Amino acid sequence: MVEISVRDEIAAFVAERDWAQFHSPENLAKSIAIEAGELLECYQWNADADTDRVRDELADVLTYCLLLADRLGVDADQIVLDKLVKTRQKYPVDKARGRSVKYDAL
Amino acid sequence: MVEISVRDEIAAFVAERDWAQFHSPENLAKSIAIEAGELLECYQWNADADTDRVRDELADVLTYCLLLADRLGVDADQIVLDKLVKTRQKYPVDKARGRSVKYDAL
Amino acid sequence: MVEISVRDEIAAFVAERDWAQFHSPENLAKSIAIEAGELLECYQWNADADTDRVRDELADVLTYCLLLADRLGVDADQIVLDKLVKTRQKYPVDKARGRSVKYDAL
Amino acid sequence: MVEISVRDEIAAFVAERDWAQFHSPENLAKSIAIEAGELLECYQWNADADTDRVRDELADVLTYCLLLADRLGVDADQIVLDKLVKTRQKYPVDKARGRSVKYDAL
Repeated sequence: MVEISVRDEIAAFVAERDWAQFHSPENLAKSIAIEAGELLECYQWNADADTDRVRDELADVLTYCLLLADRLGVDADQIVLDKLVKTRQKYPVDKARGRSVKYDAL
Repeated sequence: MVEISVRDEIAAFVAERDWAQFHSPENLAKSIAIEAGELLECYQWNADADTDRVRDELADVLTYCLLLADRLGVDADQIVLDKLVKTRQKYPVDKARGRSVKYDAL
Repeated sequence: MVEISVRDEIAAFVAERDWAQFHSPENLAKSIAIEAGELLECYQWNADADTDRVRDELADVLTYCLLLADRLGVDADQIVLDKLVKTRQKYPVDKARGRSVKYDAL
Repeated sequence: MVEISVRDEIAAFVAERDWAQFHSPENLAKSIAIEAGELLECYQWNADADTDRVRDELADVLTYCLLLADRLGVDADQIVLDKLVKTRQKYPVDKARGRSVKYDAL
Protein backbone atom coordinates (compact mmCIF):
# COMPACT_ATOMS: atom_id res chain seq x y z
CA MET A 1 0.00 0.00 0.00
CA VAL A 2 2.80 2.37 0.93
CA GLU A 3 4.76 1.13 -2.09
CA ILE A 4 1.93 2.05 -4.45
CA SER A 5 1.72 5.48 -2.90
CA VAL A 6 5.46 6.10 -3.42
CA ARG A 7 5.20 5.03 -7.05
CA ASP A 8 2.15 7.28 -7.49
CA GLU A 9 3.85 10.21 -5.79
CA ILE A 10 6.92 9.92 -8.02
CA ALA A 11 4.77 9.51 -11.13
CA ALA A 12 2.77 12.62 -10.25
CA PHE A 13 5.94 14.60 -9.57
CA VAL A 14 7.34 13.61 -12.97
CA ALA A 15 4.07 14.20 -14.84
CA GLU A 16 3.63 17.70 -13.40
CA ARG A 17 7.08 18.61 -14.74
CA ASP A 18 6.70 16.75 -18.06
CA TRP A 19 9.98 15.01 -17.36
CA ALA A 20 9.16 11.51 -18.64
CA GLN A 21 10.66 12.60 -21.97
CA PHE A 22 14.11 12.65 -20.33
CA HIS A 23 13.71 9.31 -18.57
CA SER A 24 15.01 6.83 -21.09
CA PRO A 25 16.33 3.68 -19.41
CA GLU A 26 19.86 4.74 -20.36
CA ASN A 27 19.48 8.20 -18.82
CA LEU A 28 18.03 6.67 -15.66
CA ALA A 29 20.93 4.21 -15.43
CA LYS A 30 23.33 7.15 -15.72
CA SER A 31 21.34 9.02 -13.07
CA ILE A 32 21.55 6.07 -10.66
CA ALA A 33 25.34 5.97 -11.07
CA ILE A 34 25.60 9.75 -10.59
CA GLU A 35 23.52 9.71 -7.41
CA ALA A 36 25.40 6.64 -6.14
CA GLY A 37 28.55 8.75 -6.46
CA GLU A 38 26.98 11.52 -4.39
CA LEU A 39 25.96 9.00 -1.75
CA LEU A 40 29.50 7.63 -1.69
CA GLU A 41 30.82 11.16 -1.26
CA CYS A 42 29.27 11.15 2.23
CA TYR A 43 31.86 8.49 3.08
CA GLN A 44 34.76 9.81 0.97
CA TRP A 45 37.26 10.45 3.75
CA ASN A 46 35.86 8.53 6.67
CA ALA A 47 33.20 6.11 7.81
CA ASP A 48 31.23 8.74 9.72
CA ALA A 49 28.76 10.59 7.60
CA ASP A 50 26.11 13.20 8.11
CA THR A 51 22.93 11.13 8.50
CA ASP A 52 20.60 13.71 6.96
CA ARG A 53 22.74 13.99 3.87
CA VAL A 54 23.05 10.20 3.54
CA ARG A 55 19.29 9.90 3.80
CA ASP A 56 18.77 12.45 1.02
CA GLU A 57 21.34 10.91 -1.30
CA LEU A 58 20.05 7.40 -0.69
CA ALA A 59 16.55 8.69 -1.48
CA ASP A 60 17.84 10.03 -4.80
CA VAL A 61 19.33 6.67 -5.76
CA LEU A 62 16.11 4.91 -4.78
CA THR A 63 13.94 7.36 -6.69
CA TYR A 64 15.82 6.79 -9.94
CA CYS A 65 15.74 3.02 -9.31
CA LEU A 66 11.96 3.14 -8.93
CA LEU A 67 11.67 5.26 -12.07
CA LEU A 68 13.77 2.75 -14.02
CA ALA A 69 11.74 -0.19 -12.71
CA ASP A 70 8.61 1.62 -13.78
CA ARG A 71 10.02 2.45 -17.18
CA LEU A 72 10.97 -1.20 -17.72
CA GLY A 73 7.52 -2.31 -16.60
CA VAL A 74 8.85 -4.38 -13.73
CA ASP A 75 7.95 -4.33 -10.06
CA ALA A 76 10.85 -3.21 -7.84
CA ASP A 77 9.98 -5.61 -5.03
CA GLN A 78 9.55 -8.52 -7.41
CA ILE A 79 12.92 -8.15 -9.12
CA VAL A 80 14.65 -7.94 -5.73
CA LEU A 81 12.93 -11.17 -4.66
CA ASP A 82 13.73 -12.85 -7.99
CA LYS A 83 17.38 -11.89 -7.76
CA LEU A 84 17.55 -13.13 -4.18
CA VAL A 85 16.62 -16.62 -5.41
CA LYS A 86 19.59 -16.56 -7.79
CA THR A 87 21.98 -15.12 -5.20
CA ARG A 88 20.99 -17.77 -2.67
CA GLN A 89 22.12 -20.37 -5.21
CA LYS A 90 25.37 -18.56 -6.01
CA TYR A 91 26.19 -18.22 -2.31
CA PRO A 92 25.13 -21.44 -0.56
CA VAL A 93 24.97 -20.97 3.22
CA ASP A 94 27.50 -23.70 4.01
CA LYS A 95 30.16 -22.15 1.77
CA ALA A 96 29.43 -18.45 2.14
CA ARG A 97 28.74 -18.21 5.86
CA GLY A 98 30.82 -15.47 7.48
CA ARG A 99 32.90 -14.87 4.35
CA SER A 100 32.96 -11.84 2.08
CA VAL A 101 34.62 -13.50 -0.91
CA LYS A 102 33.03 -13.53 -4.34
CA TYR A 103 31.07 -16.59 -5.43
CA ASP A 104 33.71 -17.66 -7.95
CA ALA A 105 36.27 -17.86 -5.11
CA LEU A 106 34.09 -19.71 -2.62
CA MET B 1 2.79 -5.80 2.89
CA VAL B 2 4.98 -6.75 -0.05
CA GLU B 3 7.56 -4.22 1.16
CA ILE B 4 7.76 -5.86 4.57
CA SER B 5 8.21 -9.23 2.93
CA VAL B 6 11.12 -7.96 0.81
CA ARG B 7 12.84 -6.49 3.87
CA ASP B 8 12.29 -9.74 5.75
CA GLU B 9 13.54 -11.84 2.86
CA ILE B 10 16.73 -9.80 2.56
CA ALA B 11 17.26 -9.84 6.32
CA ALA B 12 16.88 -13.64 6.42
CA PHE B 13 19.27 -14.05 3.48
CA VAL B 14 21.88 -11.93 5.27
CA ALA B 15 21.37 -13.58 8.66
CA GLU B 16 21.75 -17.11 7.25
CA ARG B 17 25.15 -16.11 5.84
CA ASP B 18 26.22 -14.04 8.87
CA TRP B 19 26.97 -11.16 6.54
CA ALA B 20 25.73 -8.23 8.65
CA GLN B 21 29.31 -7.90 9.93
CA PHE B 22 30.37 -6.68 6.46
CA HIS B 23 27.46 -4.28 6.03
CA SER B 24 28.77 -1.06 7.51
CA PRO B 25 27.05 1.98 5.98
CA GLU B 26 30.30 2.83 4.20
CA ASN B 27 30.64 -0.65 2.68
CA LEU B 28 27.01 -0.54 1.58
CA ALA B 29 27.52 2.87 -0.03
CA LYS B 30 30.50 1.45 -1.92
CA SER B 31 28.41 -1.57 -2.92
CA ILE B 32 25.65 0.66 -4.28
CA ALA B 33 28.18 2.53 -6.44
CA ILE B 34 29.73 -0.74 -7.64
CA GLU B 35 26.37 -2.21 -8.63
CA ALA B 36 25.31 1.08 -10.23
CA GLY B 37 28.39 0.73 -12.43
CA GLU B 38 27.34 -2.78 -13.45
CA LEU B 39 23.86 -1.52 -14.27
CA LEU B 40 25.36 1.27 -16.36
CA GLU B 41 27.50 -1.30 -18.19
CA CYS B 42 24.28 -2.63 -19.74
CA TYR B 43 24.11 0.72 -21.58
CA GLN B 44 27.84 1.25 -22.14
CA TRP B 45 27.87 1.31 -25.94
CA ASN B 46 24.23 1.82 -26.82
CA ALA B 47 20.78 2.52 -25.51
CA ASP B 48 19.52 -1.01 -26.12
CA ALA B 49 20.21 -3.34 -23.28
CA ASP B 50 19.44 -6.92 -22.41
CA THR B 51 16.32 -6.63 -20.25
CA ASP B 52 17.06 -9.66 -18.09
CA ARG B 53 20.50 -8.36 -17.25
CA VAL B 54 19.19 -4.85 -16.51
CA ARG B 55 16.59 -6.35 -14.20
CA ASP B 56 19.24 -8.30 -12.27
CA GLU B 57 21.62 -5.36 -11.95
CA LEU B 58 18.84 -2.99 -10.91
CA ALA B 59 17.81 -5.55 -8.29
CA ASP B 60 21.35 -5.55 -6.93
CA VAL B 61 21.37 -1.76 -6.57
CA LEU B 62 17.96 -1.85 -4.88
CA THR B 63 18.99 -4.63 -2.50
CA TYR B 64 21.99 -2.69 -1.23
CA CYS B 65 19.84 0.45 -0.95
CA LEU B 66 17.33 -1.44 1.20
CA LEU B 67 20.16 -2.84 3.32
CA LEU B 68 21.56 0.66 3.85
CA ALA B 69 18.15 2.08 4.75
CA ASP B 70 17.74 -0.74 7.23
CA ARG B 71 21.18 -0.21 8.68
CA LEU B 72 20.48 3.51 9.12
CA GLY B 73 17.13 2.71 10.73
CA VAL B 74 15.14 4.59 8.12
CA ASP B 75 12.22 3.49 6.00
CA ALA B 76 13.07 3.40 2.29
CA ASP B 77 9.63 4.59 1.20
CA GLN B 78 9.59 7.37 3.76
CA ILE B 79 12.94 8.89 2.77
CA VAL B 80 11.88 8.87 -0.89
CA LEU B 81 8.68 10.72 0.02
CA ASP B 82 10.56 13.17 2.27
CA LYS B 83 13.09 13.93 -0.45
CA LEU B 84 10.30 14.44 -2.98
CA VAL B 85 8.96 17.27 -0.83
CA LYS B 86 12.35 19.01 -1.02
CA THR B 87 12.76 18.36 -4.73
CA ARG B 88 9.31 19.76 -5.48
CA GLN B 89 10.48 23.00 -3.87
CA LYS B 90 13.81 23.04 -5.72
CA TYR B 91 12.07 22.43 -9.03
CA PRO B 92 8.81 24.43 -9.06
CA VAL B 93 6.47 23.29 -11.82
CA ASP B 94 6.26 26.65 -13.54
CA LYS B 95 10.03 26.92 -13.91
CA ALA B 96 11.03 23.28 -14.38
CA ARG B 97 8.29 22.08 -16.72
CA GLY B 98 9.75 20.34 -19.77
CA ARG B 99 13.33 21.33 -18.93
CA SER B 100 16.22 19.13 -17.84
CA VAL B 101 18.43 21.90 -16.42
CA LYS B 102 19.67 21.82 -12.86
CA TYR B 103 17.81 23.80 -10.23
CA ASP B 104 20.55 26.40 -9.89
CA ALA B 105 20.19 27.19 -13.60
CA LEU B 106 16.39 27.38 -13.71
CA MET C 1 58.06 11.14 -24.46
CA VAL C 2 56.54 8.25 -22.54
CA GLU C 3 53.22 10.09 -22.55
CA ILE C 4 53.24 10.36 -26.34
CA SER C 5 54.00 6.69 -26.63
CA VAL C 6 51.04 5.77 -24.41
CA ARG C 7 48.72 7.96 -26.45
CA ASP C 8 50.07 6.44 -29.65
CA GLU C 9 49.76 2.90 -28.33
CA ILE C 10 46.15 3.43 -27.30
CA ALA C 11 45.34 5.12 -30.62
CA ALA C 12 46.85 2.20 -32.56
CA PHE C 13 44.96 -0.32 -30.44
CA VAL C 14 41.68 1.47 -31.14
CA ALA C 15 42.39 1.99 -34.85
CA GLU C 16 43.23 -1.68 -35.42
CA ARG C 17 39.84 -2.61 -34.00
CA ASP C 18 37.91 0.24 -35.67
CA TRP C 19 36.51 1.18 -32.28
CA ALA C 20 36.62 4.99 -32.53
CA GLN C 21 33.03 4.79 -33.78
CA PHE C 22 31.93 3.72 -30.27
CA HIS C 23 33.98 6.35 -28.45
CA SER C 24 31.63 9.30 -28.23
CA PRO C 25 32.46 11.52 -25.25
CA GLU C 26 29.28 10.33 -23.57
CA ASN C 27 30.15 6.64 -24.02
CA LEU C 28 33.65 7.29 -22.71
CA ALA C 29 32.25 9.11 -19.66
CA LYS C 30 30.02 6.08 -19.00
CA SER C 31 33.01 3.78 -19.46
CA ILE C 32 35.07 5.74 -16.93
CA ALA C 33 32.28 5.42 -14.36
CA ILE C 34 31.90 1.69 -15.09
CA GLU C 35 35.62 1.03 -14.70
CA ALA C 36 35.76 3.22 -11.58
CA GLY C 37 33.13 0.90 -10.12
CA GLU C 38 35.29 -2.13 -10.92
CA LEU C 39 38.27 -0.46 -9.28
CA LEU C 40 36.17 0.29 -6.21
CA GLU C 41 35.08 -3.35 -6.10
CA CYS C 42 38.67 -4.23 -5.14
CA TYR C 43 37.97 -2.37 -1.88
CA GLN C 44 34.30 -3.37 -1.43
CA TRP C 45 34.58 -5.23 1.86
CA ASN C 46 37.93 -4.14 3.18
CA ALA C 47 40.90 -1.86 2.70
CA ASP C 48 43.22 -4.63 1.56
CA ALA C 49 43.05 -5.33 -2.12
CA ASP C 50 44.80 -7.55 -4.58
CA THR C 51 47.50 -5.28 -6.03
CA ASP C 52 47.53 -6.87 -9.48
CA ARG C 53 43.80 -6.46 -9.83
CA VAL C 54 43.91 -2.85 -8.61
CA ARG C 55 46.63 -2.11 -11.13
CA ASP C 56 44.56 -3.54 -14.00
CA GLU C 57 41.38 -1.73 -13.00
CA LEU C 58 43.20 1.56 -12.48
CA ALA C 59 44.75 1.11 -15.92
CA ASP C 60 41.26 0.71 -17.40
CA VAL C 61 40.05 3.96 -15.81
CA LEU C 62 43.17 5.77 -17.02
CA THR C 63 42.85 4.38 -20.55
CA TYR C 64 39.29 5.67 -20.93
CA CYS C 65 40.35 9.01 -19.42
CA LEU C 66 43.13 9.34 -22.00
CA LEU C 67 40.70 8.39 -24.77
CA LEU C 68 38.24 11.05 -23.60
CA ALA C 69 40.98 13.70 -23.37
CA ASP C 70 42.02 12.78 -26.90
CA ARG C 71 38.47 12.89 -28.16
CA LEU C 72 37.96 16.33 -26.63
CA GLY C 73 41.25 17.52 -28.13
CA VAL C 74 42.77 18.36 -24.77
CA ASP C 75 46.06 17.28 -23.24
CA ALA C 76 45.59 15.10 -20.16
CA ASP C 77 48.59 16.58 -18.34
CA GLN C 78 47.55 20.12 -19.14
CA ILE C 79 44.00 19.84 -17.82
CA VAL C 80 45.32 18.31 -14.59
CA LEU C 81 47.70 21.25 -14.16
CA ASP C 82 44.97 23.77 -15.04
CA LYS C 83 42.58 22.25 -12.53
CA LEU C 84 45.27 22.26 -9.86
CA VAL C 85 45.50 26.05 -10.16
CA LYS C 86 41.76 26.31 -9.44
CA THR C 87 41.87 23.80 -6.60
CA ARG C 88 44.77 25.63 -4.96
CA GLN C 89 42.53 28.70 -4.82
CA LYS C 90 39.53 26.78 -3.51
CA TYR C 91 41.64 25.17 -0.80
CA PRO C 92 44.10 27.77 0.51
CA VAL C 93 46.91 26.17 2.51
CA ASP C 94 46.22 28.12 5.71
CA LYS C 95 42.59 26.98 5.83
CA ALA C 96 42.82 23.50 4.33
CA ARG C 97 45.97 22.20 5.98
CA GLY C 98 45.39 18.82 7.61
CA ARG C 99 41.63 18.94 7.08
CA SER C 100 39.47 16.81 4.79
CA VAL C 101 36.41 19.08 4.76
CA LYS C 102 34.94 20.41 1.53
CA TYR C 103 35.88 23.91 0.41
CA ASP C 104 32.45 25.34 1.19
CA ALA C 105 32.86 24.24 4.82
CA LEU C 106 36.41 25.51 5.31
CA MET D 1 59.17 15.34 -18.84
CA VAL D 2 55.71 16.85 -18.64
CA GLU D 3 54.52 13.71 -16.85
CA ILE D 4 57.12 14.12 -14.12
CA SER D 5 56.12 17.72 -13.68
CA VAL D 6 52.46 16.77 -13.24
CA ARG D 7 53.35 14.18 -10.63
CA ASP D 8 55.57 16.70 -8.86
CA GLU D 9 52.92 19.41 -8.98
CA ILE D 10 50.29 17.12 -7.48
CA ALA D 11 52.71 15.89 -4.82
CA ALA D 12 53.57 19.47 -3.84
CA PHE D 13 49.89 20.44 -3.72
CA VAL D 14 49.16 17.50 -1.40
CA ALA D 15 52.24 18.05 0.78
CA GLU D 16 51.45 21.74 1.33
CA ARG D 17 48.04 20.75 2.66
CA ASP D 18 49.24 17.70 4.61
CA TRP D 19 46.59 15.64 2.85
CA ALA D 20 48.56 12.41 2.27
CA GLN D 21 47.09 11.16 5.56
CA PHE D 22 43.65 10.97 3.87
CA HIS D 23 44.91 9.28 0.72
CA SER D 24 44.67 5.60 1.55
CA PRO D 25 44.25 3.50 -1.59
CA GLU D 26 40.67 2.79 -0.55
CA ASN D 27 39.82 6.48 -0.11
CA LEU D 28 41.40 7.26 -3.47
CA ALA D 29 39.39 4.50 -5.14
CA LYS D 30 36.23 6.00 -3.64
CA SER D 31 37.32 9.45 -4.82
CA ILE D 32 37.83 8.20 -8.38
CA ALA D 33 34.29 6.76 -8.40
CA ILE D 34 32.86 9.98 -6.95
CA GLU D 35 34.57 12.17 -9.53
CA ALA D 36 33.63 9.74 -12.32
CA GLY D 37 30.02 10.33 -11.26
CA GLU D 38 30.49 14.08 -11.53
CA LEU D 39 32.01 13.67 -14.98
CA LEU D 40 29.06 11.51 -16.01
CA GLU D 41 26.68 14.17 -14.73
CA CYS D 42 27.86 16.39 -17.60
CA TYR D 43 26.15 13.86 -19.89
CA GLN D 44 23.18 12.99 -17.67
CA TRP D 45 20.36 14.13 -19.95
CA ASN D 46 22.04 14.46 -23.30
CA ALA D 47 25.21 13.89 -25.28
CA ASP D 48 26.11 17.58 -25.44
CA ALA D 49 28.07 18.77 -22.48
CA ASP D 50 29.74 21.96 -21.40
CA THR D 51 33.35 21.45 -22.48
CA ASP D 52 34.90 23.48 -19.67
CA ARG D 53 33.04 21.51 -17.06
CA VAL D 54 33.94 18.18 -18.69
CA ARG D 55 37.58 19.21 -18.73
CA ASP D 56 37.52 20.05 -15.01
CA GLU D 57 35.76 16.86 -14.02
CA LEU D 58 38.01 14.71 -16.19
CA ALA D 59 40.99 16.43 -14.57
CA ASP D 60 39.64 15.48 -11.14
CA VAL D 61 39.33 11.81 -12.11
CA LEU D 62 42.85 11.87 -13.57
CA THR D 63 44.32 13.56 -10.50
CA TYR D 64 42.98 10.91 -8.15
CA CYS D 65 44.16 8.19 -10.57
CA LEU D 66 47.67 9.63 -10.52
CA LEU D 67 47.56 9.86 -6.72
CA LEU D 68 46.50 6.22 -6.49
CA ALA D 69 49.22 5.11 -8.91
CA ASP D 70 51.73 7.01 -6.81
CA ARG D 71 50.43 5.55 -3.60
CA LEU D 72 50.68 2.03 -5.03
CA GLY D 73 54.20 2.75 -6.26
CA VAL D 74 53.32 2.10 -9.88
CA ASP D 75 53.86 4.25 -12.95
CA ALA D 76 50.60 5.37 -14.54
CA ASP D 77 51.91 5.10 -18.09
CA GLN D 78 53.41 1.70 -17.47
CA ILE D 79 50.25 0.10 -16.09
CA VAL D 80 48.26 1.43 -19.06
CA LEU D 81 50.78 -0.12 -21.45
CA ASP D 82 50.83 -3.40 -19.49
CA LYS D 83 47.04 -3.62 -19.52
CA LEU D 84 46.95 -2.89 -23.23
CA VAL D 85 49.00 -6.05 -23.85
CA LYS D 86 46.37 -8.09 -22.00
CA THR D 87 43.47 -6.36 -23.72
CA ARG D 88 44.98 -6.95 -27.16
CA GLN D 89 44.93 -10.67 -26.36
CA LYS D 90 41.37 -10.59 -25.02
CA TYR D 91 40.16 -8.74 -28.11
CA PRO D 92 42.00 -10.12 -31.15
CA VAL D 93 41.70 -7.82 -34.16
CA ASP D 94 40.08 -10.41 -36.41
CA LYS D 95 37.25 -11.09 -33.95
CA ALA D 96 36.81 -7.67 -32.35
CA ARG D 97 37.06 -5.41 -35.37
CA GLY D 98 34.11 -3.01 -35.57
CA ARG D 99 32.22 -4.74 -32.76
CA SER D 100 31.43 -3.44 -29.28
CA VAL D 101 30.61 -6.78 -27.68
CA LYS D 102 32.40 -8.03 -24.60
CA TYR D 103 35.31 -10.45 -25.03
CA ASP D 104 33.35 -13.40 -23.63
CA ALA D 105 30.74 -12.92 -26.38
CA LEU D 106 33.16 -12.51 -29.28
